[in-house]
Amino acid sequence: MVRPIMLGIVGDSAAGKTTLSGGIVRLLGAERTAVICTDDYHRFDRLQRRALNITPLDVASNYMDIMAQHVRLLAAGEPILKPVYRHNDGTFGPPEYVVARQFMVVEGLLGLTTRSMRDSYAVTIYLDPPEDLRREWKLERDCLKRGYERDQVIAELHRREPDSAAFIRPQRASADIVVRFAPALDADDRARLSARLVLRPTISHRDITELIEKALADGCTSIGLELGRDDGQPVDLLHVSADITPEETAHVESLLWDSMDFDHHLERSAIGSFVEGNRRRHSDTLALVQLFIAYHLLDAAAAGREDRRPA
Amino acid sequence: MVRPIMLGIVGDSAAGKTTLSGGIVRLLGAERTAVICTDDYHRFDRLQRRALNITPLDVASNYMDIMAQHVRLLAAGEPILKPVYRHNDGTFGPPEYVVARQFMVVEGLLGLTTRSMRDSYAVTIYLDPPEDLRREWKLERDCLKRGYERDQVIAELHRREPDSAAFIRPQRASADIVVRFAPALDADDRARLSARLVLRPTISHRDITELIEKALADGCTSIGLELGRDDGQPVDLLHVSADITPEETAHVESLLWDSMDFDHHLERSAIGSFVEGNRRRHSDTLALVQLFIAYHLLDAAAAGREDRRPA
Repeated sequence: MVRPIMLGIVGDSAAGKTTLSGGIVRLLGAERTAVICTDDYHRFDRLQRRALNITPLDVASNYMDIMAQHVRLLAAGEPILKPVYRHNDGTFGPPEYVVARQFMVVEGLLGLTTRSMRDSYAVTIYLDPPEDLRREWKLERDCLKRGYERDQVIAELHRREPDSAAFIRPQRASADIVVRFAPALDADDRARLSARLVLRPTISHRDITELIEKALADGCTSIGLELGRDDGQPVDLLHVSADITPEETAHVESLLWDSMDFDHHLERSAIGSFVEGNRRRHSDTLALVQLFIAYHLLDAAAAGREDRRPA
Repeated sequence: MVRPIMLGIVGDSAAGKTTLSGGIVRLLGAERTAVICTDDYHRFDRLQRRALNITPLDVASNYMDIMAQHVRLLAAGEPILKPVYRHNDGTFGPPEYVVARQFMVVEGLLGLTTRSMRDSYAVTIYLDPPEDLRREWKLERDCLKRGYERDQVIAELHRREPDSAAFIRPQRASADIVVRFAPALDADDRARLSARLVLRPTISHRDITELIEKALADGCTSIGLELGRDDGQPVDLLHVSADITPEETAHVESLLWDSMDFDHHLERSAIGSFVEGNRRRHSDTLALVQLFIAYHLLDAAAAGREDRRPA
């Protein structure tokens, strides 16, 4: 029985969780990576939530104990029978048999809520886009993919705000890495994103920061690394400028690729991919962030093998 | 967190599992007893089984690992999110949140298949009616309750026979108690049933057998107890005659009631109840068997309290 390396990705609705995890899964390989979404653990369907006037962000609106139990079982290498919430019509479908793979991505609204869940992950990510950007993303997705009207989405964002504050944003404090993508100030082009990563010392970022320092020494000017504070605590702050050139990106990527050998065959294409309307596009910044995260997972996998090596 | 006393009831389709467990639940009290049915762990819905030409009795047709996992979790006092298979139309519904109660009855076709499941139960029962009787029960139930035609049920019984032999009947060997109800030879009255119980020494039946010996000494002639062999192994064999009188039944019941004190408030009505067509009827023999089994569960609960008593 394999004991998977677990990645937790949390953030508010439309914060970019699926986009982020998509590239990571493609990179690590779909045959050894599985994604589960904690939105499937809703206690009520859409009609019931409406009748109860409760949002899906409320912990009372979710089977938090079962969510934690399933994350724990997967982390132990056991299969689960996962509930299925259908976003397209807001009802539940037949449950789905999920077998633990080498890498498990757990994404959703509330995946860092309890200690038991947090303890199951090798790496945890909180997606923290500026609210304006998240609203824009949510409007686009919910209207295009989930059959809502623009006014409905705006009303829903307003209605959900107290629960975002009460249940979603407090999870930011528990993540090993906080990721904030933001659009370039001067550009309408969605592919031109900057990223700011809070790297908390809850996991080691030593290799990554050394690697970034090397890139800086090699003349990359669109990447920055500084010591700072977040919520009063010491952290590394990593910036990627929206103006990063394809050459700089390629250089940092190649440094990362070289360090990610680990005997793995990695799928180098299809990172950095995101959807705009119905079009698939590429963002260098997104690709770099996905690589950083994959690096941590492969590092955890290698450390696991190290631990299991006979003395 | 309560660690429940688990009762496993297994037998072929229409062997009487739900009828048997119904009285036990009413006796122990619905507020502290829950029933789960392992048929909910089917891997395929009715249409898929038809397409694959596989019966629900085949282990390959069921999530055996998840079934064992859920039984294990419940035995540890954890809640589960149980899949729901709808017998009326053969499809899956939204899963159901089940909280462990003091007594958990796990009934179904395959609940004694794996060691891990068997180890979770305090008491295990295999229902072993004569095939003719089971066919009669199945015809009645499937035509009245599950919308099948008589010819379909007969064809299905024939089609399932190899899987009954391969997957269901081998579980008989693992049960602590094998129960065989049989109709009185001379009567059309369904309420007149005899029962033959194989009491295996895998759990202690000492108190029960002493109690039966007391009833015999008091002049009950419709109950018998003898040492015998089953499958080559030494067992106690307990017979209840279809001719047992209401007075004899009342006497044995009162001996059982008196011994089942255990500080419990027991619901003495509504045992022995079964459905014939659309009518609810009463069988003294069924009532006695339900009492025997409840006795074992209460005994296990008392033993558990004993174990937990400070030294």
